[in-house]
Amino acid sequence: MSRLFRRLASTIVVKPSPSKAHHHRTLPASSFPTGYLLTGIHVGVKKNAELLDVGLIVSTSDHPAAAAACFTRNAFKAAPVVVSDQIITQNGGRARAVVVNSGCANAVTGRQGLEDAWAMVKETDALLPPSASTDEHHTLVMSTGVIGQTLPIAKITAGIRSQAAADTLGSDFAAWERAAKAFMTTDTFPKLRSRVFSINGTEYRMAGMDKGAGMIHPDMGPATTSLHATLLGCILTDAAVSPRSLQTALTYAVDRSFNSISVDGDMSTNDTVLVLANGAAAKAKDGKVVEIDEDTDKEAYEIFKTELTQFAVELAQLVVRDGEGATKFVTVNVKGAPTYQDAHRIASRVSTSALVKTALYGEDANWGRVLAATGSVSFPTLDPSKVSVTFIPSDNTTPLPVLVNGEPEVIDEVRAKEILSLEDFGIEVDLGGIGNEEATYWTCDFSYEYVRINGDYRS
Amino acid sequence: MSRLFRRLASTIVVKPSPSKAHHHRTLPASSFPTGYLLTGIHVGVKKNAELLDVGLIVSTSDHPAAAAACFTRNAFKAAPVVVSDQIITQNGGRARAVVVNSGCANAVTGRQGLEDAWAMVKETDALLPPSASTDEHHTLVMSTGVIGQTLPIAKITAGIRSQAAADTLGSDFAAWERAAKAFMTTDTFPKLRSRVFSINGTEYRMAGMDKGAGMIHPDMGPATTSLHATLLGCILTDAAVSPRSLQTALTYAVDRSFNSISVDGDMSTNDTVLVLANGAAAKAKDGKVVEIDEDTDKEAYEIFKTELTQFAVELAQLVVRDGEGATKFVTVNVKGAPTYQDAHRIASRVSTSALVKTALYGEDANWGRVLAATGSVSFPTLDPSKVSVTFIPSDNTTPLPVLVNGEPEVIDEVRAKEILSLEDFGIEVDLGGIGNEEATYWTCDFSYEYVRINGDYRS
Repeated sequence: MSRLFRRLASTIVVKPSPSKAHHHRTLPASSFPTGYLLTGIHVGVKKNAELLDVGLIVSTSDHPAAAAACFTRNAFKAAPVVVSDQIITQNGGRARAVVVNSGCANAVTGRQGLEDAWAMVKETDALLPPSASTDEHHTLVMSTGVIGQTLPIAKITAGIRSQAAADTLGSDFAAWERAAKAFMTTDTFPKLRSRVFSINGTEYRMAGMDKGAGMIHPDMGPATTSLHATLLGCILTDAAVSPRSLQTALTYAVDRSFNSISVDGDMSTNDTVLVLANGAAAKAKDGKVVEIDEDTDKEAYEIFKTELTQFAVELAQLVVRDGEGATKFVTVNVKGAPTYQDAHRIASRVSTSALVKTALYGEDANWGRVLAATGSVSFPTLDPSKVSVTFIPSDNTTPLPVLVNGEPEVIDEVRAKEILSLEDFGIEVDLGGIGNEEATYWTCDFSYEYVRINGDYRS
Repeated sequence: MSRLFRRLASTIVVKPSPSKAHHHRTLPASSFPTGYLLTGIHVGVKKNAELLDVGLIVSTSDHPAAAAACFTRNAFKAAPVVVSDQIITQNGGRARAVVVNSGCANAVTGRQGLEDAWAMVKETDALLPPSASTDEHHTLVMSTGVIGQTLPIAKITAGIRSQAAADTLGSDFAAWERAAKAFMTTDTFPKLRSRVFSINGTEYRMAGMDKGAGMIHPDMGPATTSLHATLLGCILTDAAVSPRSLQTALTYAVDRSFNSISVDGDMSTNDTVLVLANGAAAKAKDGKVVEIDEDTDKEAYEIFKTELTQFAVELAQLVVRDGEGATKFVTVNVKGAPTYQDAHRIASRVSTSALVKTALYGEDANWGRVLAATGSVSFPTLDPSKVSVTFIPSDNTTPLPVLVNGEPEVIDEVRAKEILSLEDFGIEVDLGGIGNEEATYWTCDFSYEYVRINGDYRS
């Protein structure tokens, strides 16, 4: 009995969280988009000198890169969010560089925070080759780490400035990997992926990095319409896409990827996902690059939107796999809902329930907690007598129904344990055909290590 | 750095959760309402034979007791919730007994669950002296424990039946304590309180018991208008109150007590708070008991409502103090809001944030997480530059402002640690006068023991 547990010795054995390093991959240089230079350096935001804390990404394409972003909807937007939002809007959806720091979020830092974010932008602007519009800012800025502390800005600007001479920016795998490492906070591996795709016979590339691993429950909207997680992501492509269509595609992709993951249900002040499309691989027509646009070439746009969405899902899942203290990767699928939003709301609640997540950690088939979470969502048309819940193993063995039309099954506990002991598995909640819409959410378990990591994050 | 933590040995030392037993009190028999008989027995729902799992409460007053209830708003209402709701409605707000079992929630148990709940009602009805309306049901039923398992109903009904002969029902402290113990699941002490109050010169008494300790984030509404938490509470008084006014007073009291506490942010299928008012201490006029009613005697009603609310707060706070794995008791006060509901929504979000709660456990002054939680509530008129956050020590020493009008203070970490190391303290979030309403929430921290208790609750 749980009550007896409390009387036990004051040490407990923690299942060691399996290393996530095997999710880090070496990628072929040919899979990276052309026209980008990157690096990651250590300037001293983080104490440990082995850890990179500033990343730089520069588009070298003559074609001014289209830029789109989704930002946190938290009312307390961090300074870098406010500044990047402003720059994208002022430049009509164009940008040429990205600067990121990890270790300090520059959030809730008042006036000083805004000054510091602008200082990072200007210092990075100075690295760019002189352009026609020198008075414009071309750099988007992102920060992640502790909230409420100001940046060691002098160290950061000096670090950025030194790169002009140091000439460490590169386009090979090592350069992309350095940039990805500069995003990391409690992440245990750099999250870097790439893909090659073609539209109308032209081959393009897309690569990107992101980071978690706590305060992950994003709800991001497009620039200037922003509401919530700390998740940072940056996707770079050498396709040419109009700023407006790049934003439409990103908003769609983020809803079905970064806005459908949860580590701890907390929403950050810094969440930002950026996309740059520099058109470096686009064929010029009469010396002019033609940008893909949803109005002028719907078909090409749909292909790009699908590629971007699939890539965003791949990056988003890496964040859940590396969730703080996570030992499980669980796919929550809610089907039979009247609308995508209804299905998404329920999937979100199940994915964030502390009782569901601790049961997942304990490999305990306590499916009643899935039901309690589902029922806690205010939902007038929900009929408990039509709801079914099934555990879906990831090894293609037979799924295990635990609730069918509101009636509990006699559970084969041995079989349940088999499924729950897998690192990957799924929970399907079928609302019983009160609609045909469905939503998928990705979550992880809630472990002793989560408490350990977050009980004293700042030290 | 947190990342290094992961490479440490796989055992961690848990701060032993301080014993909560000192919150259990012996109460004078004179403080218990007259006209009630109670007991608690072990019938075998719980494995451990030392633990009581069935409680019985009977009103012996000639005056038919008024009954009011607030039930969970979870869509998956447990069978006992459905049955009690139905009985209160059918009887026009009257009841004469309460039966409760712990160890099994009889939730999501389909048709069998309803049959079992009715069986508990009928068996307890049979204990009552024959009345004018023998075909009516007089007993309200409550269950708490694991979801999705059916009750060992034969053991329960046999146990109830045996009480008729055994004659173990009593009115002394021991009897009240036995009943309180029968409510317990992961609770570490029986939660029993009493108070004496007077209205218009007549002295009345109020006593009650409740239980937590996980899946605690109630949102309860009056009968038949029910939406979410497992919290069970039962309040008994010998005042005479009309059923309608008893419900109005209880709904008001529950919103400001049980609906303002959170242990883990999960909502149960079973939450129920009942009140019986048997009028045993009411003076009869012309041989007839006059019930207090908001229309006929507003003044008397307001006194009763205030007493009931204060008592409900006292019982609700005991649940948070004994929250699963809790080592802290934290009062979250949100002020300067346009409406009580706005203040309540923000207080609720701060009180349920996993990051805030793990920081509380780590005694880490990570107030930025308080802000992130506050800002994650969709709230158009919230102005970050007006928000202030203050840590309030419970020992009447000087409060510590950590954020003033959106600007972070330079925190005296030593002082912050002093406050956070207290078992009791407060967090005040001042929205900066966009309104004058405020709400108070009571929460606890998120510890290793919470994960331990819930990682394998069913074993």
